[in-house]
Amino acid sequence: MMHAVEIIRKKRDGERLTRAELEFLIQGYVAGEIPDYQMAAWNMAVYFQGMDPEEITNLTLIMAESGDTLDLSQILGVKVDKHSTGGVGDTTTLIVAPLVASCGVPVAKMSGRGLGHTGGTVDKLESIPGYRVELGPEEFINQVNQIGVSVVGQTGELAPADKLLYALRDVTSTVESIPLIASSIMSKKIAAGADGFVLDVKAGSGAFMKSEEDAVELAKTMVQIGTLAKRSTVALVTDMNQPLGRGIGNALEVKEAILTLQGQGPERLTELCLELSVEMLLLAGVTNNHGEARELLETNLHNGAALKKFGELIAAQGGDPRVIEDLSLLPQAQFQEDVLAPRGGYIQKLDPLEIGGTAMELGAGRETKDTIIDLAVGLELKCQVGDYVKEGDVLARIYGNKGELMPHGVARCSKAFTIGDTQPPTLPLIYRKITVKDV
Amino acid sequence: MMHAVEIIRKKRDGERLTRAELEFLIQGYVAGEIPDYQMAAWNMAVYFQGMDPEEITNLTLIMAESGDTLDLSQILGVKVDKHSTGGVGDTTTLIVAPLVASCGVPVAKMSGRGLGHTGGTVDKLESIPGYRVELGPEEFINQVNQIGVSVVGQTGELAPADKLLYALRDVTSTVESIPLIASSIMSKKIAAGADGFVLDVKAGSGAFMKSEEDAVELAKTMVQIGTLAKRSTVALVTDMNQPLGRGIGNALEVKEAILTLQGQGPERLTELCLELSVEMLLLAGVTNNHGEARELLETNLHNGAALKKFGELIAAQGGDPRVIEDLSLLPQAQFQEDVLAPRGGYIQKLDPLEIGGTAMELGAGRETKDTIIDLAVGLELKCQVGDYVKEGDVLARIYGNKGELMPHGVARCSKAFTIGDTQPPTLPLIYRKITVKDV
Repeated sequence: MMHAVEIIRKKRDGERLTRAELEFLIQGYVAGEIPDYQMAAWNMAVYFQGMDPEEITNLTLIMAESGDTLDLSQILGVKVDKHSTGGVGDTTTLIVAPLVASCGVPVAKMSGRGLGHTGGTVDKLESIPGYRVELGPEEFINQVNQIGVSVVGQTGELAPADKLLYALRDVTSTVESIPLIASSIMSKKIAAGADGFVLDVKAGSGAFMKSEEDAVELAKTMVQIGTLAKRSTVALVTDMNQPLGRGIGNALEVKEAILTLQGQGPERLTELCLELSVEMLLLAGVTNNHGEARELLETNLHNGAALKKFGELIAAQGGDPRVIEDLSLLPQAQFQEDVLAPRGGYIQKLDPLEIGGTAMELGAGRETKDTIIDLAVGLELKCQVGDYVKEGDVLARIYGNKGELMPHGVARCSKAFTIGDTQPPTLPLIYRKITVKDV
Repeated sequence: MMHAVEIIRKKRDGERLTRAELEFLIQGYVAGEIPDYQMAAWNMAVYFQGMDPEEITNLTLIMAESGDTLDLSQILGVKVDKHSTGGVGDTTTLIVAPLVASCGVPVAKMSGRGLGHTGGTVDKLESIPGYRVELGPEEFINQVNQIGVSVVGQTGELAPADKLLYALRDVTSTVESIPLIASSIMSKKIAAGADGFVLDVKAGSGAFMKSEEDAVELAKTMVQIGTLAKRSTVALVTDMNQPLGRGIGNALEVKEAILTLQGQGPERLTELCLELSVEMLLLAGVTNNHGEARELLETNLHNGAALKKFGELIAAQGGDPRVIEDLSLLPQAQFQEDVLAPRGGYIQKLDPLEIGGTAMELGAGRETKDTIIDLAVGLELKCQVGDYVKEGDVLARIYGNKGELMPHGVARCSKAFTIGDTQPPTLPLIYRKITVKDV
């Protein structure tokens, strides 16, 4: 007979937990047999003592199996999923999904809404008139088999154990534990049924992991879990010391995705989308040559194939595909105001959290799960770190639907910029790639 | 506005908590405003990060003030309390209380029942026919003013915060934390109103602290708390690698206390009682000379003054004082059986936990707070570590009231003895004295 108090003690004393012990704990917790206070003590013990790769993988799989799991076996080919740990101006999924699909790799993507500065991928897609994010599993799978891509909201209850555990960690100061973060992310990914994962782990002031070192550790842990769980997994550790793209806000990010698929996207966003897509093509076995994959992707980005695939996706899910030609079909904000440079000089810092906070305050994001998002509002950046601006140049444009919020939006946004006399070193985009060989 | 989650985070990250933060946490917990799961996470963070002396003292005082506190100011003189962290065959309170009182130091002693191998001090006293352990506060104080001593059960609710916290620690594997152990003990002691404390911290296989090192750390922590809380406090770190006395069981320990007060007690028990009493006399200011205190105590032990005081105590609380002359007035067990040496040799080990477990199984102790104790049962040791025995010599005598339990009692008790050919080194009795100078 196992006892939770003994399992807590073992972890507290740095001992390994068996799969059976972790099952007893997690399944008992989900069943309401193990109380919050024992899980809270166990979480804190894990915070201090960590877990080894086998323990983390077992925990992940037990959480993945705690609820519904998606069966993608009816979809032909290797299904590769992509996940970002989250940052500001990160529109990659909207670009990568049709781009990769245009190369013949099936993309069956389930995305969340989530809390944050802007909505999640499915919120963004809802700014396309008519787009339905809620498809049944059969409809979802059929669509991928027909046009190669579907992006929908979560159906069923994936990894309810993670949901419970995360809510508890949030109120007991045990969020910041790499084994717990990694197993939380990977349990949901595994439940969503893909064969492989490309992970975009953000590092920097706008990311959950502030340091490259921590981001690398998280990336390694997740690659290890994926590998031990028999899913090919790679991770890119990428920069989040400034917003990734220029658009921040739901419709504004769809606009940016379309511009990028038209070959007119900002350089850093385009580059990261290409590199994430390369990894997806490699995992899917389209080629084993990085250069070849990159060439194929660049071709489909520039010849309109990826954009066309985005149109097909929109049309298949009931949206108005003309949006890819006519951005004015997206929701438009009533008010616009520019943020001007108070002095000339180099943009030395562009704080992603201030930018995200501005979008949030304008109504682009969700503070609680009941918040109603304003899809039209947000902002567009007109410069990035390293750029030289003159006094009075436009740094960013604010879009809002409440006139009274505009002055504050401008004021908060302008706090994001640090302008100085010297040119700062260029921020890298991709710090490291982590593969199974690195773990 | 304070938040529990932030207080947990501070402790998790090794930061100091202010008195206000600890008050918020403990008072909120007692009021039911802070949930078990947050306290559980905080306890585990304390387990790993510890607390500094000021934090521990604040925690102790906040817990001491969380319920009723005893006001002993109506008793003239310096009130010194004695506390043992608990061991097997530890009858010291029954001896020390009348012995110290016979030297003119008021002893207003509140004792618990508790769980364990035998009952607590008040259970033991209840084996004296008629003895009332439940006096009201006024009666208690009046008795100390009249005859200098009273030993009663706990009245009112002392340190309810500790009670709640301890129950939570017990089910979350956070018992073994020196700051939490020390504050738990000291909060109850401080609430019980004495001016000073003599602490008997047990070290060894039969004690909660297995190593001398841990026991010394606990002793230092408690002396520090007492001192910072303006109560003179000293601690003796003493041996619990074998039972302290020969009698284990409630009436059997009263018998041993009476024999000791008659000058016929076992050497180690007598010696420890004298040394604890010396410390109490020194704290009470009877003298500042160890030798003088010791002489006074030995005199009162050997001239019958201490025994007479025990008789007065018994009579004052409604018990039959003739028990101090006639041990047959104590409850007697129906069955007796001897444990014989299976071979000749030296007693190399005498495991206190096996001895305690034997007494428990015979009915001397309490597994849950609703267990009814059999006051007559237990055992008497006939030898100690280092003694030479011949094959067939009596090692111990088992006393029981259920015939069917006797064979198992004998078998379990005999497991406690390790007999070998070489004489083991003598076990020390007192490892160290810890005073304010040591902390």
